[in-house]
Amino acid sequence: MNAEVNRILQKVLKRITPTREQRKRVEQLARRLQEKVSQTAREMGVTAEVRVEGSVAKDTWLSEEPEIDIFMQIPPELPREMLGNVCLKVAKKAVEGAKQVERFAEHPYLEAFVDNVRINIVPCYRVKKGEWKSATDRTPYHTEYVKKRLNEKLRGEVRLLKRFMKGIGVYGAEIKVGGFSGYLCELLVISYGSFIGVLENFAEWKGKTVIDLERYYEKREDELRLMFPDPLVVVDPVDAGRNVAAAVRREKIAEFVAASRAFLEKPDEKFFYPPPIEPFNPKQIRVELRNRGSTLLFLTFGKVDAVSDVLWGQLYRTQKALRALLETHDFHVLRTSAWSDENELNVLVFELEQATLPPVKRHLGPPLAKRRECKKFVDKYLGSERTVCGPFVEDSRWVVEVRREVVDAAEFLREKLRDGGRTVGVAGKISDVLKEGFKVLLNEEVSDVYSWNREFARFLTGFLRGRPWWLERG
Amino acid sequence: MNAEVNRILQKVLKRITPTREQRKRVEQLARRLQEKVSQTAREMGVTAEVRVEGSVAKDTWLSEEPEIDIFMQIPPELPREMLGNVCLKVAKKAVEGAKQVERFAEHPYLEAFVDNVRINIVPCYRVKKGEWKSATDRTPYHTEYVKKRLNEKLRGEVRLLKRFMKGIGVYGAEIKVGGFSGYLCELLVISYGSFIGVLENFAEWKGKTVIDLERYYEKREDELRLMFPDPLVVVDPVDAGRNVAAAVRREKIAEFVAASRAFLEKPDEKFFYPPPIEPFNPKQIRVELRNRGSTLLFLTFGKVDAVSDVLWGQLYRTQKALRALLETHDFHVLRTSAWSDENELNVLVFELEQATLPPVKRHLGPPLAKRRECKKFVDKYLGSERTVCGPFVEDSRWVVEVRREVVDAAEFLREKLRDGGRTVGVAGKISDVLKEGFKVLLNEEVSDVYSWNREFARFLTGFLRGRPWWLERG
Repeated sequence: MNAEVNRILQKVLKRITPTREQRKRVEQLARRLQEKVSQTAREMGVTAEVRVEGSVAKDTWLSEEPEIDIFMQIPPELPREMLGNVCLKVAKKAVEGAKQVERFAEHPYLEAFVDNVRINIVPCYRVKKGEWKSATDRTPYHTEYVKKRLNEKLRGEVRLLKRFMKGIGVYGAEIKVGGFSGYLCELLVISYGSFIGVLENFAEWKGKTVIDLERYYEKREDELRLMFPDPLVVVDPVDAGRNVAAAVRREKIAEFVAASRAFLEKPDEKFFYPPPIEPFNPKQIRVELRNRGSTLLFLTFGKVDAVSDVLWGQLYRTQKALRALLETHDFHVLRTSAWSDENELNVLVFELEQATLPPVKRHLGPPLAKRRECKKFVDKYLGSERTVCGPFVEDSRWVVEVRREVVDAAEFLREKLRDGGRTVGVAGKISDVLKEGFKVLLNEEVSDVYSWNREFARFLTGFLRGRPWWLERG
Repeated sequence: MNAEVNRILQKVLKRITPTREQRKRVEQLARRLQEKVSQTAREMGVTAEVRVEGSVAKDTWLSEEPEIDIFMQIPPELPREMLGNVCLKVAKKAVEGAKQVERFAEHPYLEAFVDNVRINIVPCYRVKKGEWKSATDRTPYHTEYVKKRLNEKLRGEVRLLKRFMKGIGVYGAEIKVGGFSGYLCELLVISYGSFIGVLENFAEWKGKTVIDLERYYEKREDELRLMFPDPLVVVDPVDAGRNVAAAVRREKIAEFVAASRAFLEKPDEKFFYPPPIEPFNPKQIRVELRNRGSTLLFLTFGKVDAVSDVLWGQLYRTQKALRALLETHDFHVLRTSAWSDENELNVLVFELEQATLPPVKRHLGPPLAKRRECKKFVDKYLGSERTVCGPFVEDSRWVVEVRREVVDAAEFLREKLRDGGRTVGVAGKISDVLKEGFKVLLNEEVSDVYSWNREFARFLTGFLRGRPWWLERG
C-alpha cells in the first residue's frame, strides 16, 4: 500500500473510530436500554432474554452514526404472534416518550431515537444453531462469530469498508438501497484481511465470486453453484444453506466494483465523504431539460400507506413494469429511476429517446407455412382501417404496414394508469393511490415540483448527470 | 375441379394456344432462321449444328408471345472464345437488318426481332450428357426430355402455368424477375400432372419442396438436402447435380404460393391477365405522400452502362447494401424497392419510419469483467463532447448516453454516396454513375420525376399500395 493511500485511510479512520468518550456514552446507553427492555418484558409477563447485538456489540460502528440493536430472544415454544405484536408492545413501552417508528423486515420491529441515537428493538427466537424459526434468530450467532474473528486492527478495516460503501451509496440491506449489510462487510474483511484487500478483489470482478469461510462446500463447488445462482455468494458461517449476499442487487455489486477500481487507481478521501450535490437552479434546469434532446417523463403521485421497505419494493416493481410497458409499445427507454420523500411525494422518472413515435410501423404476420393463419391475417388487414399498405410477402411471411395505435407516451401512460394500472403491473398499494390521482409530466413541466422540493432537485440533478458522483472531475 | 375453374381455364387456354395459322407462321420462321444461321456459319467457316430449341421446339409457347430459340452447337474441342465472339458474329450476320440486342447470361448471346417475333441465337457446345462445358449445353437434352413426356393435354397445362406466373409476376429467369423459367414450369407440370395440381401442391407449401423426377436420390434424401439447401429443389432430369430452381428468389416462390392459395380460393381470370395499374394523378400522389405518415426516400441516378441482367444485379445489390447501411444507423426501414427504365433513369426507394432520428441514444460499453476495456471506455466518454449523460453501470456493463452522429437519413445518404459509395457496398458500375451525380429526394420532392415518367408513376403507385395486385378487391 502506498503512502498516499495510507495517509487517506488513517485520516478517515480517525474520523470514524469512536473516541473513548463516544464509546462510553453509547455503551452505557446500550446497557441502560437492555436493562429497560428486560425489565419491561418481565413486568408485562413476557419471557425474554434481552441482548445487545449488531455493530455496537461487535465494536464495528461508525462514530458518526451509532446505531444500537437490542434483541429480545423469546423461547421457541411461543407462538409467532408473540414475536410480532407482544414484543412490539414491550418495545414501545420500554422506550415510551422517545420518537418511535414501526418497521418491518420479516416481522415487525421498533425503531426509536434516544439521546439522538437510533435504536432498533428486534424480537427473535432463542433457538439452537440450525433450528431457525425466524429470520433474525441467526443474529446472536453472527455477533458471536464475528467477535471471535476480529481484532482492533480488523475492526478498523470494517469501519473503513462501511464508510466507503456509504460514500458510494451501496451500503445497507434495506430495499431502497439493496446494498451490502454490516455483517456482509465484516465477513468480507475477515475473508480478504483488509479494506484494501476487499477492494482489490472486487476490482478483479469477473462476474461471479464465492466466499466460503468455513469451507462447508469444500470439494462440492458444483453443488454450491447450483444452490446459489447469485453473482456474489458469501456462505453464512453460521448457516451453510444461506447466502449472506443474496439480497444485494446486481447493480450495487457493479457499482462497488467500478468504485473500487476508481479508488485504487486514484485514491481520494471523497469516496468516503461524497460532496453534496449542488442542484441546478430552476432556470438552469429548464434550459437543461429543453436542450437535452431526450424526453423526460415523470409520474408523480401522493402518499403511499406503507413502511419504507414495502414502499420501495412497490416503487421498484412499478418502475420495472412501466418500463416494460413502454418498451413493448416501441418506446426506447434510455433510463429510469424512482424517488420518494417516503411521505407525501413519489416520483418515477423515465428518460425516453422521444415522446412520440412515428405513426406507421411494420407488423409481422404468420409464415407462409401456416396456411390458415395466413388467410386470417390477410383477410383482417385487407379490410382494416389501420392498414397503410400491404399486406405483402417478405422473407416467406406476410407483413403489413399499419398505423401505430400508441404514439404518445404521456397520453398512453395516463390512459393505462387511470384505473390504477393493476393490469399493466403497477404494485397494489401504489395502484390504490393512482386511482385517486396522479400526474404525468413532460420535461419542463416538472419545474414546479423541482422548485419547491430541494431533495427532489438534488435527485434530478444527479439523475440528469447520470454518472456516479465519484466519476465527476475536479 | 369445379365448373367455374374449368370455364376460366378453357377460356384462357383458348387465348394462349397458338392457332394453326400462328403455329405455321412461327414454325416456318424458325425453320427459316435455322437454315439462315446454319448457312451463315458455313460461309464464315464455323462448324456448328444449328437447332431450334426452347418453347417452339417443345410446343409450349404462348400464342401472344412467341419466342424462338436458335442454338448453335459447336464441337467441344473449340476454345471458349468461339462461343463468345465468333458465334455472336455469325448470329449478327445471320439476322442482319433486324433489330438486335447483345445479351449476356453465362456467355453472350444475341436477341433480335424478326417479323415482330423475339429471337434468341445462343451458342453452346455439342457434348455428351454430363460432359457440360458451358451452361447452355444442357438445353438440347432438356428439349428432348420434355418433348418425350408431354402430350397435347400437358402442353396446355404448361401454357396455363406460364401465363399464370406471368400474370402474377414470377415468370422469367432473368435477374430483374428472379422467377421460374419455362423449363421449370414444364418439369412442375410433368411432376404434378396439371396446372391445378401444381397450384394445389404449392398452396400447401411448408418451407421446403423437393422434386426428383428421375429418382436420382432415391433413399439418399439426406444427401440431397445437403447438396441443395434451397427451399425449392427440382433435380434436373438430365443432370443430377443441378437444381433447376436454384436461381428462383425466395420471395418469388412465396408470391407464387400466396397467389396459388388466392386463386384456388377464389378462381378468377384476372390472375392470368393483370389489370393495368392506374397511377395516381400528380395531385393525388402529393396528397398520398404527405399524409402517409412514413417517409419515402428516393435515390435517383442516370444511365448505367450494363446489359439488363448486370444492371439489375447491381441495382439489387446496391439496394441491399444501402438498406443495411441505414439500419445499422438505427433507421427503421419499412420496405425498399428498385426501378429502372433500363436506359436513362434508375431509382431506389426506401420507405422509413422517420426521416430523422431522436438526437440522443444509448451506447453500450464493455462488461465489468473486462477491466482494461472499462477504463478505456470510461476515460473516453467522460471527456467526450458527444456524452449527454453517464457513463453509468447497468446490468453489469458500462453504458453512456451520447448524441447521435447520424440523425438525418437524406443528408447521411448524400454524404456517403458523394464518392460513389463503394465502401458502403454500392456496386461498381452504379458507383461510377453516382460519382458523376445523383439525387436524394424526400416524399413530395419526387413529384417531378413522377409527372414526366408514366412507367415510374405506375411503379410508385403499386409500391405505395404495397400489396400484390391480385389481392385488390373488386
